Amino acid sequence: MNMRRVLEVARGEKPADLLLKNGKVFFLPTGEIIEKDIAICEGLIAGLGDYEAKEVIDLKGAYVTPGFIESHVHIESSLVTPAEFLKAVALYGTTTVVADPHEIANVLGLEGIKFMLEDSKNAIIDLFLEVPSCVPATSLETAGAKLDERAVQDALKFPRIVGLGEVMDFPGVVFGDDDLLTKIEKTKAVGLEVAGHAPMISDKWLNAYLASGVQSDHEVATVEEGKEKLRYGMNILLRYGSAAKDIFNLYPLVDEKTAEFLLLCADDRHPEDLLHEGHLNMHLAFLVEKGIDPVFALRLATINPARYFGFRDRGIIAPGKLADLNVYDNLEKFIPKMVFKRGQLIVQNGEIIVGQNKNSYEKFMNSVHVDLRNINLDIPAESSKVKAIKLLPHQIITECEVVEPKVEDGLLKADPERDILKIAVIERHGKNGGMATGFLTGYGLKKGAIAQTISHDSHNIVAVGVSDEAILKAVERLREIKGGIVLWDEEEFYELPLPIGGLMSTFSLEEVKDRLRIILVRAENLGVKEGIDPILSLGFIALPVIPNLRLSDRGLIDSSKIEFTSLWA
Amino acid sequence: MNMRRVLEVARGEKPADLLLKNGKVFFLPTGEIIEKDIAICEGLIAGLGDYEAKEVIDLKGAYVTPGFIESHVHIESSLVTPAEFLKAVALYGTTTVVADPHEIANVLGLEGIKFMLEDSKNAIIDLFLEVPSCVPATSLETAGAKLDERAVQDALKFPRIVGLGEVMDFPGVVFGDDDLLTKIEKTKAVGLEVAGHAPMISDKWLNAYLASGVQSDHEVATVEEGKEKLRYGMNILLRYGSAAKDIFNLYPLVDEKTAEFLLLCADDRHPEDLLHEGHLNMHLAFLVEKGIDPVFALRLATINPARYFGFRDRGIIAPGKLADLNVYDNLEKFIPKMVFKRGQLIVQNGEIIVGQNKNSYEKFMNSVHVDLRNINLDIPAESSKVKAIKLLPHQIITECEVVEPKVEDGLLKADPERDILKIAVIERHGKNGGMATGFLTGYGLKKGAIAQTISHDSHNIVAVGVSDEAILKAVERLREIKGGIVLWDEEEFYELPLPIGGLMSTFSLEEVKDRLRIILVRAENLGVKEGIDPILSLGFIALPVIPNLRLSDRGLIDSSKIEFTSLWA
Repeated sequence: MNMRRVLEVARGEKPADLLLKNGKVFFLPTGEIIEKDIAICEGLIAGLGDYEAKEVIDLKGAYVTPGFIESHVHIESSLVTPAEFLKAVALYGTTTVVADPHEIANVLGLEGIKFMLEDSKNAIIDLFLEVPSCVPATSLETAGAKLDERAVQDALKFPRIVGLGEVMDFPGVVFGDDDLLTKIEKTKAVGLEVAGHAPMISDKWLNAYLASGVQSDHEVATVEEGKEKLRYGMNILLRYGSAAKDIFNLYPLVDEKTAEFLLLCADDRHPEDLLHEGHLNMHLAFLVEKGIDPVFALRLATINPARYFGFRDRGIIAPGKLADLNVYDNLEKFIPKMVFKRGQLIVQNGEIIVGQNKNSYEKFMNSVHVDLRNINLDIPAESSKVKAIKLLPHQIITECEVVEPKVEDGLLKADPERDILKIAVIERHGKNGGMATGFLTGYGLKKGAIAQTISHDSHNIVAVGVSDEAILKAVERLREIKGGIVLWDEEEFYELPLPIGGLMSTFSLEEVKDRLRIILVRAENLGVKEGIDPILSLGFIALPVIPNLRLSDRGLIDSSKIEFTSLWA
Repeated sequence: MNMRRVLEVARGEKPADLLLKNGKVFFLPTGEIIEKDIAICEGLIAGLGDYEAKEVIDLKGAYVTPGFIESHVHIESSLVTPAEFLKAVALYGTTTVVADPHEIANVLGLEGIKFMLEDSKNAIIDLFLEVPSCVPATSLETAGAKLDERAVQDALKFPRIVGLGEVMDFPGVVFGDDDLLTKIEKTKAVGLEVAGHAPMISDKWLNAYLASGVQSDHEVATVEEGKEKLRYGMNILLRYGSAAKDIFNLYPLVDEKTAEFLLLCADDRHPEDLLHEGHLNMHLAFLVEKGIDPVFALRLATINPARYFGFRDRGIIAPGKLADLNVYDNLEKFIPKMVFKRGQLIVQNGEIIVGQNKNSYEKFMNSVHVDLRNINLDIPAESSKVKAIKLLPHQIITECEVVEPKVEDGLLKADPERDILKIAVIERHGKNGGMATGFLTGYGLKKGAIAQTISHDSHNIVAVGVSDEAILKAVERLREIKGGIVLWDEEEFYELPLPIGGLMSTFSLEEVKDRLRIILVRAENLGVKEGIDPILSLGFIALPVIPNLRLSDRGLIDSSKIEFTSLWA
């Protein structure tokens, strides 16, 4: 960047690279909307006012806002690479993303973080990362990697690192876990933010959690909870994701005093939602519809995250800031007709108009280490009654249901007629070849099997089927395609390969969405119940921290107590 | 700091070190004032709510606010050491100071910055520094040191450095001076703030100045000027110092949208004002008197600077933040009855109640390098008419007045009867032994001489007197006391030794104030005119950037053009 050239432009002595004329510019610090021309040079806003330029775009009175900053998202939830994800959100006016690569780090450790950085190096918009704080999530499962305090300290020195990722193990913090406290201290020592995750905690637990140094939270569910946290200057992220839409409850938190402590996040976006609904535009349209002054609403997506993360170069339309700009005909849906990133027009009328180099993923495409000979799905019938994991429609929590599976040759078998399916979680990181089996109800599959490598947070293989044979068939195919999602209907495979860490596709978002849709439709045809997402529900089967019954590669877990429990009722 | 102990306290399992009971606590993020007990442990706020403690202080319904943060001050203006200055402002509720050691750096370079750090290491409150950006201020004078971009880069790595100090050479920035731009780039590269100084610039010059990366300004004089700068997210410091009191004009800038971009600063505080008027309490009392919501006013002294400078550990009353707290019976004058720093009660009823180690200053006490044999005050009468520097009452600018001094033996002499005094500026850093002489009017001294080592920004010796002999006498004494201020009334010396860099005293603020007062009264008795501060006016005689006529050690300067000019009219 040639600052002398920028200054020549700013002084009006040389023509700018680009001039955006006749836009109504949002000056968020004062709340003014003023028609002013924007001169851009070397990717920066060089000046506002009367300027000449080599290229002029007449905005004809359209609105101009700063580009948006996503404050917390797991890119892996979108099943595509960072580069592909960034293209998708750029379409909706996001020009900077802060992501927590928690999922890929559970599979590949620091290499996973490096992949996210490498893949986004020349991406269409900027990606910054938080270092995942809780890998693995618990000791009741086998992850692909462990990020201890030394690993976190190493990662804090990586480029484009802005903080420590959501400290989910809030009981660990509250009770002074050494490793966690050291991670937080190391992050504070370098002046970076410490992101929180503290659903429903209050009073003394909240005090302890904050005392450690945690600075934000995206798990707030109610206004009352938010108010207590805001009182203490905790930065609250209003979430509007594919799964959780807390912003629907939380918008009354926004007022002229609290606004500066509020940010926006998606947390997760599933491929179809990302393609058809968008990103932070949804938050903004919702807030404005609820009567919030657009100036304050826009700050939540611009100035506030810039200040929170310490980005001194963006979030405002002003000389010296990055020319990250969105142009709108109207602010109804906050869908921009043009997006500029560092002064380059990257989006026009809903299309990305710049090319991108294809990245290479080869070295991150070998994460499924399973020896099929070690897979043993037999469950000897020691007793007739077992605890089955019961899925509930539209809910992430499960229940424990006592069922009596079929018995054949002294072994317990699935009985799809009675909606008793067999389920297996198979360690796939090449750590110990372990696996565990159990039973699932409430899912509804009548034929075949589904297996996938998405399984929070350790992302082992989770497979469910109407028979041991079908499960084995699906797992075998899953291994062949290096991870992803496989549905075997006993005739054909329906699959979405996710060879990057078993979590991300090399395909475009569009193609991922289409393949996913085909699998979902087929699963529905095969009997998966209404209100049960065939893929997402399996993705949480192994997560030991959500009530009530879970299955990790190490065994059945009573997740209300976060401890192992016996299969036998 | 033992975080595990803090967490035990936060959880309510162990007693806190100290509990502040029954205070009305200002929760600035939400604007609530709620009666809540504050539990303190290890210098941090461990929790708010019901707690036990080893020591309890009953606040009996008094108000509690966060301690204040001074955003820009030159400690040297108070003529005392950092440790002494910090005690003085702590009395008024300031618990963190950001200072720009521009003056001492002009004398001692990086060593001067190190002195400020060393002297404040165990001080009563926290001192952070900005690295001075413009040392020396111009090339028309001889400073004791030059801080080029390499020196600045080194200093940026010193502890407790928060940014680059006011970039005063704004034309240099606007026109792309390489050294300045590099200093700014290096500062931005490490994520620190770049402080500005840009009086009255607007439009294209402002654009260029901001484009370089400057982020704040404390020189704003009018609402209109402030509004243009705020629009671009420039952080505006409302100044209320001994000299400049811009806050009187600027308070209408504060509203619920702009407030977060506003900070408070003194810039300079003279000893008497500091003792008897205070510090940021004056700003706050003024703002509230003008009708500004105390919650927004208080943010200007707490949250806002914390965010601007990137202090994640202070500015809010919340668990995990430093227990820097002020307690008030009423908010009328914002003079606290108690001040806590890191949980320690340091101020009670207007008295500092903690002791402090005496620091050693020896190695910084040798900054006056003058060989008396080289001093030659002769001005051969080449012509009868000379340009004299004319002081104006209550103003910092000077005028050029053509006068005809007395002639004796072919030499031009002072003529106190006609208020024509001789003035000399003598290089005192041991650089080149240079000096320059000229004439002064408008000062009024009728007897003796005054000499001082305070002389912005290079701080050479400036001496004015009714005769060459009197001037020599004062300079000789000034050298003996290692710098400071000397008044010679032809019978006795009245003096304030400032042996630390020739700028700061080893005395208490009280004693400095008393000695200064004696000098001022004597100067008045000797004829110095009303509206002319005998010391401050001389302190600006050598500053080449303020109109219209100045005298540096290198000669007479037409400071409207910032170039040398001839003595002869």
